[in-house]
Amino acid sequence: MVVWSLQDELAAFVAERDWAQFHSPENLAKSIAIEAGELLECFQWSAEADVERVREELADVLTYCMLLAQRIGADPDQIVRDKLAITREKYPVEKSRGRSAKYDAL
Amino acid sequence: MVVWSLQDELAAFVAERDWAQFHSPENLAKSIAIEAGELLECFQWSAEADVERVREELADVLTYCMLLAQRIGADPDQIVRDKLAITREKYPVEKSRGRSAKYDAL
Amino acid sequence: MVVWSLQDELAAFVAERDWAQFHSPENLAKSIAIEAGELLECFQWSAEADVERVREELADVLTYCMLLAQRIGADPDQIVRDKLAITREKYPVEKSRGRSAKYDAL
Amino acid sequence: MVVWSLQDELAAFVAERDWAQFHSPENLAKSIAIEAGELLECFQWSAEADVERVREELADVLTYCMLLAQRIGADPDQIVRDKLAITREKYPVEKSRGRSAKYDAL
Repeated sequence: MVVWSLQDELAAFVAERDWAQFHSPENLAKSIAIEAGELLECFQWSAEADVERVREELADVLTYCMLLAQRIGADPDQIVRDKLAITREKYPVEKSRGRSAKYDAL
Repeated sequence: MVVWSLQDELAAFVAERDWAQFHSPENLAKSIAIEAGELLECFQWSAEADVERVREELADVLTYCMLLAQRIGADPDQIVRDKLAITREKYPVEKSRGRSAKYDAL
Repeated sequence: MVVWSLQDELAAFVAERDWAQFHSPENLAKSIAIEAGELLECFQWSAEADVERVREELADVLTYCMLLAQRIGADPDQIVRDKLAITREKYPVEKSRGRSAKYDAL
Repeated sequence: MVVWSLQDELAAFVAERDWAQFHSPENLAKSIAIEAGELLECFQWSAEADVERVREELADVLTYCMLLAQRIGADPDQIVRDKLAITREKYPVEKSRGRSAKYDAL
């Protein structure tokens, strides 16, 4: 039995539908922003939201993020780790502990 | 040697800085939308973008997505797979092949 | 003395810089989303925000909205009034009073 | 006959429905981002969009912008003019003519 990776599953889903033609990096970036708006809509009038709806909208944002990563040849986990290393430098524990201020205001 | 999972690394990064207090689902959803705007800015005036910048901004969106997944107890890969199953139903291959129309217009 | 309308001032600002070439409706829609993200950033970690910063970011969103209205030949005030008439129908006072529910859940 | 200003019409619309309670600056900023996402959706897969739909979605963004302006006591036209004065300084005609580069890259 072959277990498909999520990236392979997404690639097959797109290929079957011949949708790669629509998935330029620009269109995928627009799609991420659109879906991020729908996720935010779960919290439009209240900090409380329906968890099931949040899961679905978050899944939509993540799906387009993974498609964009694939399109630009990036590994999602790796770019998150790389960015985390940068963020660790910008927000040293001793300066940022318990504070939400931006690094240039620390 | 212990290899940390990305989720564990992110959790440690947040814990060290005592930032969980700021990471309500609502604030994380706002953060995803904010970072999605910065990603989109790479494509503001052109379909061409600096790949390095796209990687960094995509990493920021992904980071907040993973933090939100963690916060609501969802597995990022699993919710993407679950949503993919729904999307497969909404967009059958024979109807959606080569078309970017929304499912209710197919 | 001639008092310029705001729309005329914006048009002159763009013409002087020869920027109309960048202002396709699509690019302006992206710009509105980008600036909306920056406005949201004022409220990223708290409901309280610096009013001066909110004014500036709101001004950026409004500027691109006006440029898009101009580009598609729409009068900003008129389209808001037209949409208000539709919204009044969807949200009758007796059903929607004191409730934030969406019209299809009223 | 009394002609109502648009701001008065919007205020009356909100008052009749007792919706001011939901219209915190933060909620309005979220609403602007959500509607900006819907506007962007008109251009998700193509630079061409249905003009009627664009008008409606733009109207939604503008409506929340006006409500936020009202809420923070700002005059929409005035803040756009104020910001335009700042932008004129940042983008002098001779440096920015025909270029879409950001001011810090001019």
